[in-house]
Amino acid sequence: MSIAPAAPPTLLVLDADPLPRLGRLTGRARVVHTDEASLAERLPAADVLLVWDVGSHAVRAAWPGGGPRPRWVHTASAGVDHVLCPELAASDTVVTNARGIFDEPMAEYVAALVLAMAKDLPRTWELQRRGEWLHRESRRVAGGRAVVVGSGPIGRAIARTLKALGMTTAVVGRVPRTGIHGPQDLDRLLARADWVIAAAPLTEQTRGMFDARRFGVMQPSARFVNVGRGQLVVEDALVRALERRWIAGAALDVVTEEPLAPDSPLWQVPGLLISPHMSGDTIDSYDELGAQFVELFERWAAGRPLRNVVDKQRGYVPGH
Amino acid sequence: MSIAPAAPPTLLVLDADPLPRLGRLTGRARVVHTDEASLAERLPAADVLLVWDVGSHAVRAAWPGGGPRPRWVHTASAGVDHVLCPELAASDTVVTNARGIFDEPMAEYVAALVLAMAKDLPRTWELQRRGEWLHRESRRVAGGRAVVVGSGPIGRAIARTLKALGMTTAVVGRVPRTGIHGPQDLDRLLARADWVIAAAPLTEQTRGMFDARRFGVMQPSARFVNVGRGQLVVEDALVRALERRWIAGAALDVVTEEPLAPDSPLWQVPGLLISPHMSGDTIDSYDELGAQFVELFERWAAGRPLRNVVDKQRGYVPGH
Repeated sequence: MSIAPAAPPTLLVLDADPLPRLGRLTGRARVVHTDEASLAERLPAADVLLVWDVGSHAVRAAWPGGGPRPRWVHTASAGVDHVLCPELAASDTVVTNARGIFDEPMAEYVAALVLAMAKDLPRTWELQRRGEWLHRESRRVAGGRAVVVGSGPIGRAIARTLKALGMTTAVVGRVPRTGIHGPQDLDRLLARADWVIAAAPLTEQTRGMFDARRFGVMQPSARFVNVGRGQLVVEDALVRALERRWIAGAALDVVTEEPLAPDSPLWQVPGLLISPHMSGDTIDSYDELGAQFVELFERWAAGRPLRNVVDKQRGYVPGH
Repeated sequence: MSIAPAAPPTLLVLDADPLPRLGRLTGRARVVHTDEASLAERLPAADVLLVWDVGSHAVRAAWPGGGPRPRWVHTASAGVDHVLCPELAASDTVVTNARGIFDEPMAEYVAALVLAMAKDLPRTWELQRRGEWLHRESRRVAGGRAVVVGSGPIGRAIARTLKALGMTTAVVGRVPRTGIHGPQDLDRLLARADWVIAAAPLTEQTRGMFDARRFGVMQPSARFVNVGRGQLVVEDALVRALERRWIAGAALDVVTEEPLAPDSPLWQVPGLLISPHMSGDTIDSYDELGAQFVELFERWAAGRPLRNVVDKQRGYVPGH
């Protein structure tokens, strides 16, 4: 698709701080920063919206109905659920995401969590705090079976990395295709899995998919990792599954309400590891996200087709 | 080499508990268990000594001089420094080790430590205990440079696994050969390394090799992992290197005095992760160690050449 820009277009940035690489657009865009409170007021005059604060859900509430609105919205994240409201989905505004930036970092993070659980590192460091030398036997990851739910570039990168560690991997997506299982295979695969990795986008099909029934399908020795979206998981069901030893452990990098409140009982659930939605974020990420947006902006300004265009009905970027 | 056994040979086992797989030798060996206190008294009458308690150094003290002694000593470990005393080294007694059993488990353990440090997991779980959601950016391991010191099967397995995670790896051994650097390259490699992995046997050449000078050669961003023997490291020098930020972090699976005393200051050194000499030990290890010894015993009893024969002057099994 091609969108001819007016010059100089107004680029509205949802984030108070200056961004790396954006200086390259000097003279080619009028850059306006906004916070959540002023977003609704400023959206109608913007040609492009860059959602840099990807923890914000303000776009959903502030999106103008049928009136003037940005022709293009880019989010510096892989998931788009925090942006896509029905009005935006129904409009002709193009939505793009940061496809590609997070794939390999997230795959490494999942490998880190899987290996840490297999080698019982959390307990080792708890014993270290107490000055206790307590030898145990740990588990191999090689030879284990992993099921990755989510067949986009993130899920496929995770599967590649776990395979490089000697694991047998299966990837489950919305539609079966070469090398990808469809949803009809999911329960059968879960029943045999040593590791279950959630890396799917949040859509109406995936919301709450990891519920009591699915944790009940898994093996008592299985461990569950979620690096997708918190809402993929029915958290109460996960807590009960851990308490009742339906599964052996879990790690959540994402939770339903972020940031997780200091008094949330989730912090204390035995066998549950929590990290603050950081699986994809490396010290190079912001630079890469800035450079990616600048490149997309240059395509857009030149009237060339954008990349990473989200299918707003499905809620993710389709294709390979 | 071939050693003709008398029948039924006496197999002395240094360990109080029954061992997996050893029942297969019923009728073919007179199995006598011993503790450290009775070892010296029982050694002269033994044909074979199986050192199953590999944390014990009792063999060094109890080994008979020129008198009757076992013709074969097997240790259920990769390292042989806890067994090899000068008198044993000078004798015609054959020493074998558990070469092969620990390679892949140790490689996974090193990968777990490297990834955990890159992703800052120890801090994440410390924050979890306090109920703090604190997002940070972490590091990639892919693209990083690792130097593995130790060119035996363990060191080479570690290098393979780190390479599978996208790292650039170099292996350093006693003698340069294809794909292996010699000691003359070590300092140059250390100066560029993001990760330094110690996986060498303890010999007179390797004792204390990681000293203040070598930590000073490393980059301030470098991290050090020891899964070999505690005595490869001058621990005071490591502590000072961490305190003064000569290097960014370290993980020790082995220490000079094991078990590490509850009141050792090592437990509390910031940036230092300690685990209780468990990198190679999986829930399958004991079975595999038992099966390996039984196979070696059958070769020995049949007068066929043993495998995993230690070069007692060098202190490890030479060759590929």
